[in-house]
Amino acid sequence: MMQFPTPLQQLVTQLKRLPGVGDRTAERYAFSLLEWEQSDLLSLGQLVNEIKNKLPICNDCGCFLHESSCRFCSSPRRNRERLCVLASPKDAYVMEATGEYDGLYHVLGGVMSPMRDRGPESLRIQPLIQRLEALSTKEVILALDSTLEGDATSLYIKQLLEGLDIEVSRLAFGLPIGSSLDYVDGGTLARAFSGRRAF
Amino acid sequence: MMQFPTPLQQLVTQLKRLPGVGDRTAERYAFSLLEWEQSDLLSLGQLVNEIKNKLPICNDCGCFLHESSCRFCSSPRRNRERLCVLASPKDAYVMEATGEYDGLYHVLGGVMSPMRDRGPESLRIQPLIQRLEALSTKEVILALDSTLEGDATSLYIKQLLEGLDIEVSRLAFGLPIGSSLDYVDGGTLARAFSGRRAF
Repeated sequence: MMQFPTPLQQLVTQLKRLPGVGDRTAERYAFSLLEWEQSDLLSLGQLVNEIKNKLPICNDCGCFLHESSCRFCSSPRRNRERLCVLASPKDAYVMEATGEYDGLYHVLGGVMSPMRDRGPESLRIQPLIQRLEALSTKEVILALDSTLEGDATSLYIKQLLEGLDIEVSRLAFGLPIGSSLDYVDGGTLARAFSGRRAF
Repeated sequence: MMQFPTPLQQLVTQLKRLPGVGDRTAERYAFSLLEWEQSDLLSLGQLVNEIKNKLPICNDCGCFLHESSCRFCSSPRRNRERLCVLASPKDAYVMEATGEYDGLYHVLGGVMSPMRDRGPESLRIQPLIQRLEALSTKEVILALDSTLEGDATSLYIKQLLEGLDIEVSRLAFGLPIGSSLDYVDGGTLARAFSGRRAF
């Protein structure tokens, strides 16, 4: 295919870095941006430029601040004896949407990943230990991805907390709601089987 | 779901304007942007801000200029008696990729669309007529989308050119290559049937 003009090709290349976006989608996005009003482009460009600086993070839990206060840490109605450990601030929104959890959060800022040269020292694990003491936490819920890296991180934290008087649990593995056995992979089915509950 | 902080929500709202992007995808994109280096965000933001101004368009054919010269109009090797009418500059790249066409292009800048209040006067149709005269064009190929709006625009241009000594054709309708009759819609099949060719 004939090369696009340089600025357009640069835009396509940058857009391809978004998750799940390949050549064709990036080109569609770039040409769609060309049809936007210049004022809308300026506003998007400015948001992209400033987004990192405009999203301050709570020094305690690592969640996003809303108008410079943390909705979780500053809420008197939340159970301060439970702490849910998350990889990223966005996970707090997913947990809140379930309506099942009333405790505090602690964002690690990622999971351990030897491939990406991320060891435990690059995560907010030391602050976690300090918070557990300060809050006299009774229960820690590990809510990390069920990937190799998430599992390794969960295991690492569990071992760190051994000996402390804290109940440590993690999210259950099993069949997704509404799923059919035909479509569930073997690993999930094996975990669902070994984790079966009295009925 | 709990509201995101305002700047993040604004970013999600803007990203949702990209074609085919809904809430979930826009949120994924926004959170992925948060993990970019600030320097990459600045470069993307700047590209978005400037893209419209950095893509000058050929005054004659309406295609993008490459380093301030038009690769089509300025090429001595292209057949200047054939003119292919396109809706958008991006279509020229798709046509070039086929390697089938050696003539010039003319970009209309869209198609007629009563729904979006776009009549023929908002398109580059008057310049098309002037170019046909100046170039003594012998053949016009209408390469617009096979949608209601594309068809109406093709028909409008065809009627304008009646009486001039110009051969007017449009892209063929029929089965996509590699397709199965089972999956082809009735309209396409009807057009493929009425347009059948001696074999």
